[in-house]
Amino acid sequence: MTTEPRLPVAVDAMGGDHAPGEIVAGAIRARDELGVPVVLVGRPDELGDTGGLDVIAASEVIAMDADPAKSVRTMKDSSLVRAAEAVRDGKASAMVSAGNTGATMASALLRIKRLPGVGRPAIATPIPCPGADVPTVLLDAGANAECTPEWLVQFAQMGSVYARQRYGIETPRVGLLSIGEEPTKGTPLVKETHALLAAGEWAAAVGGTFVGNVEGRDVMSPDVDVVVTDGFTGNVVLKTLEGGMKALVKAILATFDTDDSTRAAGDALIPALLPLYAQLDPDNTGGALLLGLNGPCIISHGSSSATAVVNAVKVAVEMVDGDLCGAIGAAIRPA
Amino acid sequence: MTTEPRLPVAVDAMGGDHAPGEIVAGAIRARDELGVPVVLVGRPDELGDTGGLDVIAASEVIAMDADPAKSVRTMKDSSLVRAAEAVRDGKASAMVSAGNTGATMASALLRIKRLPGVGRPAIATPIPCPGADVPTVLLDAGANAECTPEWLVQFAQMGSVYARQRYGIETPRVGLLSIGEEPTKGTPLVKETHALLAAGEWAAAVGGTFVGNVEGRDVMSPDVDVVVTDGFTGNVVLKTLEGGMKALVKAILATFDTDDSTRAAGDALIPALLPLYAQLDPDNTGGALLLGLNGPCIISHGSSSATAVVNAVKVAVEMVDGDLCGAIGAAIRPA
Repeated sequence: MTTEPRLPVAVDAMGGDHAPGEIVAGAIRARDELGVPVVLVGRPDELGDTGGLDVIAASEVIAMDADPAKSVRTMKDSSLVRAAEAVRDGKASAMVSAGNTGATMASALLRIKRLPGVGRPAIATPIPCPGADVPTVLLDAGANAECTPEWLVQFAQMGSVYARQRYGIETPRVGLLSIGEEPTKGTPLVKETHALLAAGEWAAAVGGTFVGNVEGRDVMSPDVDVVVTDGFTGNVVLKTLEGGMKALVKAILATFDTDDSTRAAGDALIPALLPLYAQLDPDNTGGALLLGLNGPCIISHGSSSATAVVNAVKVAVEMVDGDLCGAIGAAIRPA
Repeated sequence: MTTEPRLPVAVDAMGGDHAPGEIVAGAIRARDELGVPVVLVGRPDELGDTGGLDVIAASEVIAMDADPAKSVRTMKDSSLVRAAEAVRDGKASAMVSAGNTGATMASALLRIKRLPGVGRPAIATPIPCPGADVPTVLLDAGANAECTPEWLVQFAQMGSVYARQRYGIETPRVGLLSIGEEPTKGTPLVKETHALLAAGEWAAAVGGTFVGNVEGRDVMSPDVDVVVTDGFTGNVVLKTLEGGMKALVKAILATFDTDDSTRAAGDALIPALLPLYAQLDPDNTGGALLLGLNGPCIISHGSSSATAVVNAVKVAVEMVDGDLCGAIGAAIRPA
């Protein structure tokens, strides 16, 4: 904990399917419930009652489906770009957005910049493991469709530092996503990365341990703490799980509605099912983190509610207080 | 339907976690319940009561975890190699194995051979969509870790033919797995494949239609019939879904066991849940199919029960009767 006055977390008030209403409500709740300073970024006259929160004015809004690179290049007064600039300029400690994911990445990368030595930032997404205490950290979940072995090794380092700081795992178990346990399985990218991770030098300044290749079935298991993959595969995995879980839960809930007997049984089960539902609810994970930059950037899912914003601000503050970026910088470039 | 005497389906009696017991039992049931000829391939003295089924003797067994290429090269009298040779030599119409997947592919590829013009065979796996009548066909689910755009286009063709023949879909909707709907999203492989699929020539002799990029969340949805991807991504998707579904079902069943009230509610729900459970049970899908060869090769999952073998033989017979291989050959090389 710092004894200096805390910098606020910059919240992009215009980003997300339920912006600005839910986002502003979440920002106010974050300040009140967590006791931390929050600053909104957006169009002042569209934010409604901000509960006395400071506002950084930004006149433009990057749409959810806009081209990320082009938007960030041309919309210099957008809420996303201004939020990233607030972090760059020392006016905010971290940024949170539920807006256009690609534009969030581009804004943060261009304005907050990479830590020295980091090849590419990566999106680290917590994957809940039903029944387990902590999620698995999947990275890269979509920042870089194409990767080099060296970047994947850095993802192992950044993911290990993150898993320790966020989930208290002293020696994170890092797995490399492949299509078989044997080092000979997979693409050339995976095989080369396997050799580098198995050599072990990456772990010297990090404290993680390489458990070898893991498969898709291990992503939602408690047997591995960090799953490293390229951003194409990681994004497909993330969305496959989202879609699969949603389809299965929907089908199960439909069986509850078969007849009076099953409806009564369903009602009786709801209290027991709620903790599981809460564990799988993306509003409760605190969002994904863009790792490898000079300041924490939290990427919340597009449908974020006020609760999701509260949890995202909470994670942002924890990462600032624990100096996640400093720890990642030290791991990537050991003194 | 042919009026000639039907050729038997060759079943690898030695492959699978429960071989030979469950495999032989399934082969006998397939003959009795489906009224089709079946021939077992394996070590005659280890098969127990074969119920009068013919046996093609093979003295070697390729272990589940053996190196596929090396095993097939050196174990010429293995049950897998002999099963593939039976198809090649016109002694069987198709082969079924629950054994080593890589060795099954290698045996079939080397002995049954590719259809003229086929770049690479692909594993087509049915993905059940909860609540929908027919599954989505995912290919390649693991045969080729690295692919070219041209192979992926052929996968679209082969998958369309298969979806029509097996599931009766007149104009299969083909999606290309990527990380966004826009044609600009994804790896170079995906972008080049998108352009080829969008050009539409591939569909001329096939009758499928390209619906554009799809994402991981669409794999288990009824909005697409065939999902095309490289064998690395496809295998990761398949195993991610298997692992995710299993973890979620386990967690839900655990909530049923909370107290007397939830246990009673769970008991009341079981009859309504059974059809969903049956839909998701891999024993009921009939297995994956290796497409692009001169004869059907069914790859059953390693833990196949007798029921899985019955369903695999059923699919094999359907594919033989409908001349799947002839239709694929015609689609790949239009007259």
